[in-house]
Amino acid sequence: MNTRVDISSVAAVHNELRAKTPLVQYITNYVSMDIAANVLNAAGASPAMVHDVHEAGEFATFASALAINIGTLSPPWVEGMEAAARAANELGTPWVLDPVAVGATAYRRETVMALLEQRPTVIRGNASEILAIATQTRGGKGVDSTIDAAAVIDLAVELAGHTDSVVVVSGKTDVVTDGQRAYLVHGGHDLMPLVTALGCASTALVAACNAVEADPVAASVAGMAILAAAGSLAGIRADGPGSLRWRLLDELAGLDDAKIAKHIAVEAL
Amino acid sequence: MNTRVDISSVAAVHNELRAKTPLVQYITNYVSMDIAANVLNAAGASPAMVHDVHEAGEFATFASALAINIGTLSPPWVEGMEAAARAANELGTPWVLDPVAVGATAYRRETVMALLEQRPTVIRGNASEILAIATQTRGGKGVDSTIDAAAVIDLAVELAGHTDSVVVVSGKTDVVTDGQRAYLVHGGHDLMPLVTALGCASTALVAACNAVEADPVAASVAGMAILAAAGSLAGIRADGPGSLRWRLLDELAGLDDAKIAKHIAVEAL
Amino acid sequence: MNTRVDISSVAAVHNELRAKTPLVQYITNYVSMDIAANVLNAAGASPAMVHDVHEAGEFATFASALAINIGTLSPPWVEGMEAAARAANELGTPWVLDPVAVGATAYRRETVMALLEQRPTVIRGNASEILAIATQTRGGKGVDSTIDAAAVIDLAVELAGHTDSVVVVSGKTDVVTDGQRAYLVHGGHDLMPLVTALGCASTALVAACNAVEADPVAASVAGMAILAAAGSLAGIRADGPGSLRWRLLDELAGLDDAKIAKHIAVEAL
Repeated sequence: MNTRVDISSVAAVHNELRAKTPLVQYITNYVSMDIAANVLNAAGASPAMVHDVHEAGEFATFASALAINIGTLSPPWVEGMEAAARAANELGTPWVLDPVAVGATAYRRETVMALLEQRPTVIRGNASEILAIATQTRGGKGVDSTIDAAAVIDLAVELAGHTDSVVVVSGKTDVVTDGQRAYLVHGGHDLMPLVTALGCASTALVAACNAVEADPVAASVAGMAILAAAGSLAGIRADGPGSLRWRLLDELAGLDDAKIAKHIAVEAL
Repeated sequence: MNTRVDISSVAAVHNELRAKTPLVQYITNYVSMDIAANVLNAAGASPAMVHDVHEAGEFATFASALAINIGTLSPPWVEGMEAAARAANELGTPWVLDPVAVGATAYRRETVMALLEQRPTVIRGNASEILAIATQTRGGKGVDSTIDAAAVIDLAVELAGHTDSVVVVSGKTDVVTDGQRAYLVHGGHDLMPLVTALGCASTALVAACNAVEADPVAASVAGMAILAAAGSLAGIRADGPGSLRWRLLDELAGLDDAKIAKHIAVEAL
Repeated sequence: MNTRVDISSVAAVHNELRAKTPLVQYITNYVSMDIAANVLNAAGASPAMVHDVHEAGEFATFASALAINIGTLSPPWVEGMEAAARAANELGTPWVLDPVAVGATAYRRETVMALLEQRPTVIRGNASEILAIATQTRGGKGVDSTIDAAAVIDLAVELAGHTDSVVVVSGKTDVVTDGQRAYLVHGGHDLMPLVTALGCASTALVAACNAVEADPVAASVAGMAILAAAGSLAGIRADGPGSLRWRLLDELAGLDDAKIAKHIAVEAL
């Protein structure tokens, strides 16, 4: 028996985000940089894509949150990721790991395993990626999920318990769990998976919300819910993935408490 | 005397593409990544930009097609390109080479010559680039074509015969030839060259079609025709390059047999 | 007492730009590549993002202008930047430096100081960045400006005199000065800072205008004014940062003398 949750905490985190414009350092893949930076900007955060080991750690010492995404991986970038994660951990800065297509190659699996040892505050992936981490088996097709988030709820709860990270599984319905509590976020639009890298952008938003909200579960629910609300709104008038993308940015910038209340639902499991 | 070709094979390849959502590995320049991934996604394929030598070859062993674009070149990327091309060749996976601005620098010429030795299934360039490869002379202005595709038909036929690759020359009218057969694809819109990297995106679509159609000429005609049809449709209501870009993605996602039949023409030479 | 300047020289530079379509080499950060290339294309220039030391210097020998942006810095890119700046200087090709977030890390400060020794034709930054260079102190929050351009006019004039570069400070009102003359460019729209990397795109436009106009002050005023005019026009019907972005590209492509005259103002100090 599930319980509908008052979404006022999502609105509160959203208002904090707009009030504080936190600086979010995002070490991410080339494909997602444009949309992730624009999503952060539109939602009220201040994005900075600083990746190289010569400065990534130093930058992380004054960023309000950090996100690390392995979409387009190479050794110099992995060095920067590790330095930034270390710096974030030393200062207690929240950081989010996005294990893009982790099941696809040995290099991805190794990189993710090394980053998991640094215990990210949050792991945000699609169902295939969370499944791949949880089972350490090869899964997923490219970077898109071929299974639904709801199908991996139990695995997500187990993974969160095991890693001591909050686990966020994105999909038609998003799952957020710290191993004890588990929430579903309903919202969004069917066109969203056709816009490349919105998953990567959601990772950035989750990081931004963790910068302004101390409870990583509440923050992560808010991050996913903000994107879902804007996506639902954008989908009303979108004619395809091209128009959904720019409408999503317009809706993010114009989001308010009433729209959040109307366009998403959060459910406690 | 040219012959108008029944475009039903374009529609057939397009339907195959949507049915199979092939995984397309695209090692491409930074400028094109966003639009190329979104074009692949909107057209029904599954994009993955995996470039580094630590995983590019491994990834190519399970990708359905590979494309390699030299737009923003550097030594680590060239290593990844060569490893991926080798892996594709070992498994008979089709791959497409996009020799962006090949005439501009010695480094580009050398890189393209080395990749040509691995015999790509398809070479896709604009007229200046095909001319530069065919004549090994310096040509082209930046990455844009300053001559028309039609002017290099004979050179394209000769290059295809010589390299044993299908050659695709993009332009106002596209040329596709394997040295024996040659086709012209009519369609598209005058605003398309003002949208950066649509040529790079066409390379990705050609790769995607080669993943689902065994005849590389038919596949390449279909790839260029799909983009041209969506471009023609997008141009109807576009007010400039900004609106053309997102409308093109909307039209790609909504393309069907009737629209293809109405908005492009394929001609056999 | 300020003087309103006849904006006919902006229109003249704009028409030269469209007539000559200069090749602009832009070594820039990953986040900005898409929008910067599309802005150059829409405004009439020919963009080329060629960064690696194996070809960046060679490419700069035939580019009409060069721009260097340190947004996503790493050692191989710094090598390419230095080689390209040297090649530009040897041939007297104008080049523009964009010191993104220079105050944030030691690596950025060092890189900018080394590039300044090569005396860029123009330095284009926001107020925080210009302040950071001028005072060599840590300033700025991420890559966004937290202070207004007008507040640093005196510092900009001093920096221009000291470095022998034209200094452009972008903001709600832009400042352009060579240490002797100083101009303000009024125009643009409040939504522009919410679109990521429009500052980086303005750097590219300033470079493009310097390719067709020998006076770097007049060229830089024109570059900033062209973007401001298109931004003002785009803002009329934009509903947020997503729609502003594509409308800006449409407006850039459709800009003419009358629109420039109506939508910006240039003031001599």
